[in-house]
Amino acid sequence: MDELTKFATRPTGVGEMFQLLRDGTPRTRAELVALTGQSRSTIAARVDVLLASGLVSPAGEATSTGGRPPATFRFNPAARVVLAVDLGATHARLAVTDLAGEVLAEHAEQIAIADGPGEVLGTVVDRGRKLLEQTGRADDLVSVGVGLPGPVEHSTGRPINPPIMPGWDDADVPGILGARLHVPVLVDNDVNVMALGEHSSQWPGTDHLLFVKVATGIGSGIIMDGQIRRGAQGSAGDLGHIAVADGPDLPCRCGNTGCLEAVAGGPAIAAVLAADGADASTGADVVALVRAGDLAASHAVREAGRHIGGVLAACVSLLNPSVIVIGGQVAEAGEHLVAGIREVVYRRSLPLATQHLRIVASRTMGRAGVLGASAMAADHVLSPAAIDAIAV
Amino acid sequence: MDELTKFATRPTGVGEMFQLLRDGTPRTRAELVALTGQSRSTIAARVDVLLASGLVSPAGEATSTGGRPPATFRFNPAARVVLAVDLGATHARLAVTDLAGEVLAEHAEQIAIADGPGEVLGTVVDRGRKLLEQTGRADDLVSVGVGLPGPVEHSTGRPINPPIMPGWDDADVPGILGARLHVPVLVDNDVNVMALGEHSSQWPGTDHLLFVKVATGIGSGIIMDGQIRRGAQGSAGDLGHIAVADGPDLPCRCGNTGCLEAVAGGPAIAAVLAADGADASTGADVVALVRAGDLAASHAVREAGRHIGGVLAACVSLLNPSVIVIGGQVAEAGEHLVAGIREVVYRRSLPLATQHLRIVASRTMGRAGVLGASAMAADHVLSPAAIDAIAV
Repeated sequence: MDELTKFATRPTGVGEMFQLLRDGTPRTRAELVALTGQSRSTIAARVDVLLASGLVSPAGEATSTGGRPPATFRFNPAARVVLAVDLGATHARLAVTDLAGEVLAEHAEQIAIADGPGEVLGTVVDRGRKLLEQTGRADDLVSVGVGLPGPVEHSTGRPINPPIMPGWDDADVPGILGARLHVPVLVDNDVNVMALGEHSSQWPGTDHLLFVKVATGIGSGIIMDGQIRRGAQGSAGDLGHIAVADGPDLPCRCGNTGCLEAVAGGPAIAAVLAADGADASTGADVVALVRAGDLAASHAVREAGRHIGGVLAACVSLLNPSVIVIGGQVAEAGEHLVAGIREVVYRRSLPLATQHLRIVASRTMGRAGVLGASAMAADHVLSPAAIDAIAV
Repeated sequence: MDELTKFATRPTGVGEMFQLLRDGTPRTRAELVALTGQSRSTIAARVDVLLASGLVSPAGEATSTGGRPPATFRFNPAARVVLAVDLGATHARLAVTDLAGEVLAEHAEQIAIADGPGEVLGTVVDRGRKLLEQTGRADDLVSVGVGLPGPVEHSTGRPINPPIMPGWDDADVPGILGARLHVPVLVDNDVNVMALGEHSSQWPGTDHLLFVKVATGIGSGIIMDGQIRRGAQGSAGDLGHIAVADGPDLPCRCGNTGCLEAVAGGPAIAAVLAADGADASTGADVVALVRAGDLAASHAVREAGRHIGGVLAACVSLLNPSVIVIGGQVAEAGEHLVAGIREVVYRRSLPLATQHLRIVASRTMGRAGVLGASAMAADHVLSPAAIDAIAV
């Protein structure tokens, strides 16, 4: 059925030809003829359609072996813009970017996700419009990408029983935003979106990457064979409630005990420090203590890293990624977290899975969300079917 | 680059059109025109090429709204055959099947994989040729699929440091078999091949499936978004050396302790029974005892199931499959193993991931390997690029 849909929505073939230009390499008409097996006249017509849309632009002349050198063309990511939205429990970050994730304008503010979809999405529309005005590119908006701090049904873009988002259950986020911004709206959970942001901006050539967010909760976004893998109900990557081997049997908000989140999430680390008299209740407090040089805090973060490492060792056996990226607020405490993780993963995994494995801290940190939302939104409008629709 | 290769090897477009017929639905030329957006003359020419190859055959007339009813066409999987080979430590199973996995002839015998690739693959060629002769289809052979009991580098089809296959490290299995059988040879590890066999024959509509083999070792094959996922080095799904939470700290052959395999593999279950005086050292002994009504053996299998369930609960959180299939020799002990697994998975996983999850015993059992090898071989020759090559 997927194959059918793919064919049925591809009346022109412009979209497929466009994929050959998408990597930015300049190509001549003759190269496109050779690569597609299509006739010279068909290719010429398709190039004209793409030039007219602005999505492809002239890229000078190729070197010639004699005669007039042929013209080349390449993808022009600056031709359109997307609105990227990263919503957390207490923050909203928005950016207007081009189709290659180049940030043209951005904005961040404190919000309360618990204010519900009406108020929060109203703020998003208002701030988004201001950013678009600021860049002068409102007419070039082609899509919106949104990351939400809870489970999202991928096919509909609606949150499903999100624990920290009261009032958002089954909210039609794409419908609400689409009605006011008049473009397609893509929605996913924040961890998948962060994984996409880190992957597209820092590791574009890596096919197997696991992005781990360590904050109040602990979750991951899985990239296998170059794509986010969401699983049957979209809950793939949910590390927070995996049982920790040899960890303390602490009660978890899910009703079980010994879950990774209950043992190694930000509040769990803070609780260890508070028991020794420190003034800490959140991951932010822990990060502040570590940055202030508090040794007990550094040790607690490293110990949390070891517990996370135990679960990640299982992930390495199961997924065989070549890169694990550690992000989220607690990762801002610096190398202690990654050091604890590495210690256990390299001890507990088989050599075949770890010989080429890199475990690194996030390079995008606070920006992973907007970069991922931008990549998700751009990817949607650059698909073969979407390009065909533009070209009609 | 993948996109480029795809385009560069698709001069005719016959292969892509063929994908529309592959599900077996009869289609008219007019439907193919509508689905592809290609011209009527192009479609007519491509249908002729496929009819000439035999891969597509007439399927009678469609109902008509007036005038002469149009002819329909569909995929004819009986047009070619593949050789499917399932090699274990001590067994070889071979089958000649058509392109839909229909078994035309099969053969099984005891072998010793430790005899090395020269002797074992010599036997495979000899028995394969006999099966082909027996079916009278030797000239219709288009590919060979092989499952091996050890890690295989997917891109080359060569075993990599396989622990129970002395003499096989880096052996050019595709080269050795291809030189004598003159068709492409696809090789993968046995668990991936079994996953493919169970998926293609029993769960073709399920996009997210985990196949778990419980035998001397414990491993899994991961299907996400409809495809086997192998990870960066091809070791994805390697459950055997994940640490068991709350299990006995038994030494494992990998050098660590408390690995799933050391706690719940066939020999580990046998060791528990032997300590109480039973005559058991292998998984086969355990299965025999269970079948003979030995209560201690049933209990030990159920307890092993619980340990496996603990690791599978983590897999459920991470992969969110909709079906977990339990196969391998120990699964032949009956429902005890699956019951122990279910008990822990449903207790330890979050509702979102388990509400639609089914955990079932393998339905193909001993045949999963050959069915998977057949599916892998057929899939290779039915890809767009391969069909284009046939059509030239």
